[in-house]
Amino acid sequence: MNQALLKAREHTAIAELKSEPKSTYRATVTALEAQLYEFIPVLDHGFIRVMDYMGDDGAIVQAARVSYGQGTKHARDDSGLIRYLMRHWHSTPFEMCEIKFHVKLPVFVARQWIRHRTANVNEYSARYSILDREFYIPSPENLATQSSTNGQGRGAVLAGDEAERVLDILKDDSARCYDHYEAMLSQESQQGLARELARMNLPMNIYTQWYWKVDLHNLMHFLRLRADAHAQMEIRVYAEAICELVKAWVPATYAAFEDYRLNAAQISGPGMVALRRMLAGEEVTQEGSGMSKGEWREFQALLEG
Amino acid sequence: MNQALLKAREHTAIAELKSEPKSTYRATVTALEAQLYEFIPVLDHGFIRVMDYMGDDGAIVQAARVSYGQGTKHARDDSGLIRYLMRHWHSTPFEMCEIKFHVKLPVFVARQWIRHRTANVNEYSARYSILDREFYIPSPENLATQSSTNGQGRGAVLAGDEAERVLDILKDDSARCYDHYEAMLSQESQQGLARELARMNLPMNIYTQWYWKVDLHNLMHFLRLRADAHAQMEIRVYAEAICELVKAWVPATYAAFEDYRLNAAQISGPGMVALRRMLAGEEVTQEGSGMSKGEWREFQALLEG
Amino acid sequence: MNQALLKAREHTAIAELKSEPKSTYRATVTALEAQLYEFIPVLDHGFIRVMDYMGDDGAIVQAARVSYGQGTKHARDDSGLIRYLMRHWHSTPFEMCEIKFHVKLPVFVARQWIRHRTANVNEYSARYSILDREFYIPSPENLATQSSTNGQGRGAVLAGDEAERVLDILKDDSARCYDHYEAMLSQESQQGLARELARMNLPMNIYTQWYWKVDLHNLMHFLRLRADAHAQMEIRVYAEAICELVKAWVPATYAAFEDYRLNAAQISGPGMVALRRMLAGEEVTQEGSGMSKGEWREFQALLEG
Amino acid sequence: MNQALLKAREHTAIAELKSEPKSTYRATVTALEAQLYEFIPVLDHGFIRVMDYMGDDGAIVQAARVSYGQGTKHARDDSGLIRYLMRHWHSTPFEMCEIKFHVKLPVFVARQWIRHRTANVNEYSARYSILDREFYIPSPENLATQSSTNGQGRGAVLAGDEAERVLDILKDDSARCYDHYEAMLSQESQQGLARELARMNLPMNIYTQWYWKVDLHNLMHFLRLRADAHAQMEIRVYAEAICELVKAWVPATYAAFEDYRLNAAQISGPGMVALRRMLAGEEVTQEGSGMSKGEWREFQALLEG
Repeated sequence: MNQALLKAREHTAIAELKSEPKSTYRATVTALEAQLYEFIPVLDHGFIRVMDYMGDDGAIVQAARVSYGQGTKHARDDSGLIRYLMRHWHSTPFEMCEIKFHVKLPVFVARQWIRHRTANVNEYSARYSILDREFYIPSPENLATQSSTNGQGRGAVLAGDEAERVLDILKDDSARCYDHYEAMLSQESQQGLARELARMNLPMNIYTQWYWKVDLHNLMHFLRLRADAHAQMEIRVYAEAICELVKAWVPATYAAFEDYRLNAAQISGPGMVALRRMLAGEEVTQEGSGMSKGEWREFQALLEG
Repeated sequence: MNQALLKAREHTAIAELKSEPKSTYRATVTALEAQLYEFIPVLDHGFIRVMDYMGDDGAIVQAARVSYGQGTKHARDDSGLIRYLMRHWHSTPFEMCEIKFHVKLPVFVARQWIRHRTANVNEYSARYSILDREFYIPSPENLATQSSTNGQGRGAVLAGDEAERVLDILKDDSARCYDHYEAMLSQESQQGLARELARMNLPMNIYTQWYWKVDLHNLMHFLRLRADAHAQMEIRVYAEAICELVKAWVPATYAAFEDYRLNAAQISGPGMVALRRMLAGEEVTQEGSGMSKGEWREFQALLEG
Repeated sequence: MNQALLKAREHTAIAELKSEPKSTYRATVTALEAQLYEFIPVLDHGFIRVMDYMGDDGAIVQAARVSYGQGTKHARDDSGLIRYLMRHWHSTPFEMCEIKFHVKLPVFVARQWIRHRTANVNEYSARYSILDREFYIPSPENLATQSSTNGQGRGAVLAGDEAERVLDILKDDSARCYDHYEAMLSQESQQGLARELARMNLPMNIYTQWYWKVDLHNLMHFLRLRADAHAQMEIRVYAEAICELVKAWVPATYAAFEDYRLNAAQISGPGMVALRRMLAGEEVTQEGSGMSKGEWREFQALLEG
Repeated sequence: MNQALLKAREHTAIAELKSEPKSTYRATVTALEAQLYEFIPVLDHGFIRVMDYMGDDGAIVQAARVSYGQGTKHARDDSGLIRYLMRHWHSTPFEMCEIKFHVKLPVFVARQWIRHRTANVNEYSARYSILDREFYIPSPENLATQSSTNGQGRGAVLAGDEAERVLDILKDDSARCYDHYEAMLSQESQQGLARELARMNLPMNIYTQWYWKVDLHNLMHFLRLRADAHAQMEIRVYAEAICELVKAWVPATYAAFEDYRLNAAQISGPGMVALRRMLAGEEVTQEGSGMSKGEWREFQALLEG
């Protein structure tokens, strides 16, 4: 489908959805209403947008107060209670909030994403429909070498000719594979191959899309792994866009999430022992720490921040 | 807590929640908004009420159309599409809707209910708080004998003296156990037992309460099992109350659910063979059907309706 | 990696695993032990094999007897009890059995498969490692046209030249994309692109592999959908191979599964009403049935078998 | 049922199960085989025992090597790899192991336990069968006062008369409720109440039993919460018994679990900032730390160990 046409159609659809506000008694978050249905661009052809949500910071507090009853009644303010829940891994109150996204993303990103099983998904089906001619082509500054220290990571940015060669390959192969996809499907002067078969010729940088619905607890687990510096950049940018949306949606929860998850450190038993000795003024070495070299290196990195 | 006081407090809380409608662009269902927060009495002291919801019939259709794309564009109307999804066990579009209930229920019912694992729960904690003095005492017409044919069911209503004896036992033991619970907790002229220990003296007809959040697909699975005639009456009445709420929320889905789940029959392979022979005018007996006596009896019951 | 070499290595590995039987007191199934670790070829380069299992028909019966206690003690034989559980959707006893497979399968099949969320998966990671040069190329008799009646299905086999053209495309594009994948990764006289990026150039008929572990209840749900005639052939062949393995593993359960799931029919409420009228000798038409044309057509198909 | 008789029957059953070892090619753990089926007493009438298991430390390594492929081939030894997986929250390889327990436990403990949803359960049903006359009565040293600082915890041991009064209440009420349960069920010179109703008169210290099957990842999550010092003692003793079994089953994993979970500390973002300042010789106070009083207190407790 023509991109300009698609864009126009999308805007009409949003305009329709947002033409008349409805009246509700449900928990409502003004800052997220403003974002509702709006396309947030990610990568070259992708996007993410919020399609619906349920609950707010107050719903978490409400659930916690049902659980802990009179115990919490006069206790602390809402934000303090949320921080307490987060710190002590009381996860069920956060499950009371739910959010639904519409995401357009390359297939190789979708394959990582779907590994998070506690969510609901409806993906565009290439058995039923023809995929659009849209492929993820990295921008030159995102073409990187294999990391020499991290088996799964990237190193330096590719320089000069090599980057160009890579981009040419990605563009040419995408285009050719898609041309052939269309040629196989075509019913002009031939029968036309079934869609469920033809799709296998498409490379994994083609875009797909889905609705993805998840509760806040499981969403934060996803963000902890995917907004992390070790996550592949192409999924991290989606996670970062979601972080901004979560911040708008449940600001108290997001602040606690930053302090107790995103910026927190897990220190091992031997690490805590070493730490206590260091705080007591003792000099601790790897050999004397009971940690392996790798563990010691990671421990040092944590302490240096 | 005094019941009248509690009622008053609850009504104030609802009044507050419903004092000022908010403006939203989310899918909104007027018929369910009317029910929001309202207590629906179930059993003698129990209730169920809707605290929040996400999605409507349209959200299911929207998700299905993303999945099946252009394939469904000109296809059929929304209700026809929903019926198709239900008939062919396409469950993921129904997972796009979510609902959150506040339920007050006896502990022995809660223990059955919680076996449905794909849901989010926050239960009142008797470690943190003191349970109220409220027990389920069946009404006389719900006191029944053990079924002689069904290992887990009930038979005839208990007659005369026996019903009275049972009610006396249930009332006396509840009252005595609760008096002792309070006595053990009391810090007057003694130290007072920890709440997490004292609660073990309470019988399983005491009421607890929780927030229970579930997606529509899993809710219908719950309803299929618990709104069924074979379910224990004390959980079935909650399921029936939920059925009414679901009907208000997603009427097209509920109609399809009735036709394809609640009122549908699963007929086994041998049953289908027998049925085809019967439709061809043949007389089929249990012996000639390949079914065991029990299977044949259930098959006959299905055909008789 | 060279295929002959791989095969040799695999056979050595199996030989090692099977060189010395171990002694266990766990439930053990001789018929499945014989299959353990053995590669069962599926499609052109794929396979499935059993890596481990837990439980047997007896474990299901044992769990059911814990649940139903004295009620089932003198009741019926094991196979009758298993049939009863299956017929009445008592799913938890079937969850007591677990099986772990090693599967090699094309990526577009893996993407369907992974939609079954209640399972444990470890997939070969193309961020860490280089994928093998192995692509699914359908055999000519499996190249089919788009079905004209079923939006997601296949019609007749592609005839003559067209099939050849399709095969040429699939082979050429796979080969070219893989050549380019290797070229981008290469560190000869260039830096070499990161693996996590290079993989995006690969088409979805490339093979991946994973360990997939699932309980018997969820496995049967998978089989009901994927061994079905409407499932895409390329996943159905895996499901059929699994059916044979399940038959060897838990024969009583598999027989019940065939009768009550694979060969069973779900008949809607209106369908049951129509059926009862037909059995009473009445002639029922679509118009008089309360069913839509599509529903009536499917209903007729069920009755004809 | 008579306890002596039951014990005898149980021992016969174990003897039968263990009379003849079977031959298997599956991963087998000698240290756990020795424990198989053996009753480990917990609390006054409870027990836990292993009924079956799948996998071992090697299965985790095997799954990790499939995922990370050639990347890990020459990398590190098995135990180092397991520690790496644990440290970096790579949870899926641990899901490749599965274990099944038979547990006898008081109902109020079962209600906490069941909140862990990612597991398979078959519980003894009091709709089908009559519960045994067995109640948890704490030993005097486990009768404690309500904690004054922790809303959900226990304080000092109850002294003198009070403990006796509590024990008398618990024993008397259990006995009376059970007598009445039997009286209501009885069919002597009356009809007898249905089991599904009579059970509601039983207090929550009555024992129930179930089969509980779980993968190793989710089991460790359970242990992290329930073997913790803040868990209620009556569930912690089960968790501690499981810890011993897990240590026998997967020793390398258990060692990593101790270092990276049980004995590890989660330090918040502000905590890490404070820590770095302290290691640099700075004096940090609560006021200057950005932490609330409660957070600071917990932070200090961590550092003191």
